[in-house]
Amino acid sequence: MSVELTSNSYGKSAIRLLKVERSNVDRVHVIRDLTVDIAMSGAFTDVHVVGDNSRVLPTDTMKNTVYALAREHHLGEREEFGALLAAHFLDASEAAERVEVTIAEHGWRRLEVNGRPHEHSFERGSAESRIAIVTAVRGRAVEVTAGIENLVILKSAQSAFRGYLKDRFTTLEETSDRILATAMSARWRYRTGEVAYGHAFDGARRRLIETFATHESASVQHTLYAMAAAVLDERADVEEVAITMPNKHHLLAKLAPFGLDNQNEVFVPTEEPYGLIQATVRRGD
Amino acid sequence: MSVELTSNSYGKSAIRLLKVERSNVDRVHVIRDLTVDIAMSGAFTDVHVVGDNSRVLPTDTMKNTVYALAREHHLGEREEFGALLAAHFLDASEAAERVEVTIAEHGWRRLEVNGRPHEHSFERGSAESRIAIVTAVRGRAVEVTAGIENLVILKSAQSAFRGYLKDRFTTLEETSDRILATAMSARWRYRTGEVAYGHAFDGARRRLIETFATHESASVQHTLYAMAAAVLDERADVEEVAITMPNKHHLLAKLAPFGLDNQNEVFVPTEEPYGLIQATVRRGD
Amino acid sequence: MSVELTSNSYGKSAIRLLKVERSNVDRVHVIRDLTVDIAMSGAFTDVHVVGDNSRVLPTDTMKNTVYALAREHHLGEREEFGALLAAHFLDASEAAERVEVTIAEHGWRRLEVNGRPHEHSFERGSAESRIAIVTAVRGRAVEVTAGIENLVILKSAQSAFRGYLKDRFTTLEETSDRILATAMSARWRYRTGEVAYGHAFDGARRRLIETFATHESASVQHTLYAMAAAVLDERADVEEVAITMPNKHHLLAKLAPFGLDNQNEVFVPTEEPYGLIQATVRRGD
Amino acid sequence: MSVELTSNSYGKSAIRLLKVERSNVDRVHVIRDLTVDIAMSGAFTDVHVVGDNSRVLPTDTMKNTVYALAREHHLGEREEFGALLAAHFLDASEAAERVEVTIAEHGWRRLEVNGRPHEHSFERGSAESRIAIVTAVRGRAVEVTAGIENLVILKSAQSAFRGYLKDRFTTLEETSDRILATAMSARWRYRTGEVAYGHAFDGARRRLIETFATHESASVQHTLYAMAAAVLDERADVEEVAITMPNKHHLLAKLAPFGLDNQNEVFVPTEEPYGLIQATVRRGD
Repeated sequence: MSVELTSNSYGKSAIRLLKVERSNVDRVHVIRDLTVDIAMSGAFTDVHVVGDNSRVLPTDTMKNTVYALAREHHLGEREEFGALLAAHFLDASEAAERVEVTIAEHGWRRLEVNGRPHEHSFERGSAESRIAIVTAVRGRAVEVTAGIENLVILKSAQSAFRGYLKDRFTTLEETSDRILATAMSARWRYRTGEVAYGHAFDGARRRLIETFATHESASVQHTLYAMAAAVLDERADVEEVAITMPNKHHLLAKLAPFGLDNQNEVFVPTEEPYGLIQATVRRGD
Repeated sequence: MSVELTSNSYGKSAIRLLKVERSNVDRVHVIRDLTVDIAMSGAFTDVHVVGDNSRVLPTDTMKNTVYALAREHHLGEREEFGALLAAHFLDASEAAERVEVTIAEHGWRRLEVNGRPHEHSFERGSAESRIAIVTAVRGRAVEVTAGIENLVILKSAQSAFRGYLKDRFTTLEETSDRILATAMSARWRYRTGEVAYGHAFDGARRRLIETFATHESASVQHTLYAMAAAVLDERADVEEVAITMPNKHHLLAKLAPFGLDNQNEVFVPTEEPYGLIQATVRRGD
Repeated sequence: MSVELTSNSYGKSAIRLLKVERSNVDRVHVIRDLTVDIAMSGAFTDVHVVGDNSRVLPTDTMKNTVYALAREHHLGEREEFGALLAAHFLDASEAAERVEVTIAEHGWRRLEVNGRPHEHSFERGSAESRIAIVTAVRGRAVEVTAGIENLVILKSAQSAFRGYLKDRFTTLEETSDRILATAMSARWRYRTGEVAYGHAFDGARRRLIETFATHESASVQHTLYAMAAAVLDERADVEEVAITMPNKHHLLAKLAPFGLDNQNEVFVPTEEPYGLIQATVRRGD
Repeated sequence: MSVELTSNSYGKSAIRLLKVERSNVDRVHVIRDLTVDIAMSGAFTDVHVVGDNSRVLPTDTMKNTVYALAREHHLGEREEFGALLAAHFLDASEAAERVEVTIAEHGWRRLEVNGRPHEHSFERGSAESRIAIVTAVRGRAVEVTAGIENLVILKSAQSAFRGYLKDRFTTLEETSDRILATAMSARWRYRTGEVAYGHAFDGARRRLIETFATHESASVQHTLYAMAAAVLDERADVEEVAITMPNKHHLLAKLAPFGLDNQNEVFVPTEEPYGLIQATVRRGD
């Protein structure tokens, strides 16, 4: 029998890093809380087939490198630290043809004391993570994708679901007023070249949120598409947007047996099952 | 052999409820997102020993009741809705001697559109829950406890750990400057009688946070105690405070092998193991 | 204002330990996979009130100690290793008045190769943990409790729920045939003195399982009580049994709208809400 | 600006289903515990762009359909029930061009009473799920993939990691004897046509496990490749195997500070960071 290795990838995942950045002029601290994943692929056939490790940069070394480079460099934008790491690993491993660095940043808010922001005390923010994915392929321009993971948003008006296909197994009632809730994941790919990453991220996120809030939704698909299109409209430096939105169903509590109406007031949030809606939208010609 | 039932409790847990409250004068929605647990105990020996269910109010009925009462009443403060539920269940079940209602409220922030808060769109807040526990024992005054669950806070200065006991197995180095991070859980019991629950909660939470931020910490125990004492100092209506603080260790990344120093800049956040510190503090005589 | 510390506890939680025990005569390995929690309380008022750490054995030292004692000793029964640790920490900390050591053991099954158990390869078992809790109070006999955490069991016959209290909010239908499923947690306290812990654990677990399987259940309470009583009946060395059983509801899928019956065939397993039933049973006089 | 929808998918995820199958001749029950995900894509541009739902089969209907078809049909092999569902949804939705059905089956073991398997009582097995993925594209032969998710396996011998690339950031020590542990995910694609799915699954799983156990491992990559190749060797009906193996690191506890050696006896299991190794292997020409 003949078998062949058709794809391979290895690396270190879930490298946790907190960096405290101190100002020189006051006592204000800034904290950066990142989870870094490194994945490499390339000419690693002999590693798999004959157990030859001579071209393998250990994943433990990758981990050490993340901490060391975080010490040697100002982190800057996630995309910049990601690009630094990707370039380093492409250098460090001759056999690697492709290095993908994914950075998720976790938010912290400054605590307030006597109504003023405190110098060095923080509260963890929501479960949202801000994502940068830098893909470096030997001999090609680096590709940069940004995104948001697990942004939980809900609108309690301007969401309908009507006029759909019905068959023997349909029991869902049409509604012109339902709760729309999701834990959005979005990824947007930047065009190659100079991008003001911080500014671009803020603009993209703002348009996602504002579109979600103000859209007259006929379905999750309808709103998801509008959100993606809004990012493309806002940011000329974005080429493609992919969004995933689970439909986190909120069921109307059934109160009729108790002689009570329920005019979209009392809902049962549910975890499973959930709808799952995904689409990719790109700039047309 | 003779055996006896020495304690019993039953009820429904994890009843999820989202209520949309609409203003009459504008189109602004308020959402309340609660998880309710009901637990009852009392004269239920025959349920256990001989399978006689005649005095058992089903937990399914408890669930229905929570949704129905949420429809019939303005929720108000968590403690008020909890007291309403506790009184109801004590009435509904003759055999019950004690009903404990626990309400956890999950935070949502209003989304902003064009810099202004939106009427009906929201973003999930942090993992912190705000807690009310109402305990109704037949023939006694109701006991009300409030609290906070899973408030993740971190300070990057003013935290030391020195001068501790050392033995054969001690390798920890003393430090006058470490990261102190925790996922705080706090419970404070109110004195019986009229309490302005919303105001009291805000005051207690503010003192917990401000004390954490500004305390010159010699240990987790030291800061935990100061936080509990601050609540008792702030709120004459609070009789006792219990706090649990896991010590979420942030280890200094070891960079010396790479010829780099690390002056409290680069840390490795860890999940396990963790220190676990608990104490209860009450008003003295 | 005067405040006082009314209780305190500190220690290290979630100390993860895997020990490989090798046979001298063949190449068979045995693995023990434990999570250890240490909690201490005692004369630690000054730690809290004035930040004096001179009597504090660091939780980091506790962690080191667990690994070192695991190296120096054969682990033996969980209860024995727990007792060793508890005694050690009571010695190591003059200020401690009470040490509680909790050990959870996670199961692994030996893999089979060509139908025979393999010497050193294993598959993780179910989510069940086997528990030992050793409580050492200075000057008193050690107290030993064993138990089971998260044993998920289900019976698809011999479970009814009928004849219960009904009120305005009751919609549940009586049933003489439902699914009973739970993630059982049990703790049983041994009488002081010599106990064959391994044998006792196996006997208690077997009676819990066999009683669950064969009981003609009128309610979760009814079966829970029978299970606890069966352990007391089996084991003269057990003084008290506490059991917690969430009722993991399996709802009959509603198929009538599709012209289909559903004679207890197709169910929807649900996670929330869930019933929560707890009771403690002890040997009577 | 012009934008275009380049890919889309929608469906219902996490449909939980438990079916009790009763024998006609004795009282033995068999339970099947499945999680089903349905995903559809096709000519749904108008749903996204203009909010026209007329061709949308609601995900709620998908859920109902899974329960109804589970009632109307013997479930049989996962792959067969998946194919039934996929064909149904392609029929039910004219606009769909592709339907993917993923079924994860969760294991239960029969409880023993007096040493004999009980008729209707079960214990949840490990966290491993058994997977079938059926992909139906209109006008093409159905594609069937089987697999295993989250099989946690460990070997405490015959695993080395030596001879790797070293650079400035390498601190890892070479070892000829380490613990190799993973939570394996595997997927293997069957050739089109008649396959004895149950038999094929058992054979593939057995070879994965036996190869893991007996392989003289030079690295995770080395063992992963051997496992995939073994499946291709065993099963002529398998065309391609993809395996993902996180390297769940077990660190040697550092006992030298206490004057103790540690000859691969006492380990610290860690959750993060972890190595992540993936590869796909297919039959060559």
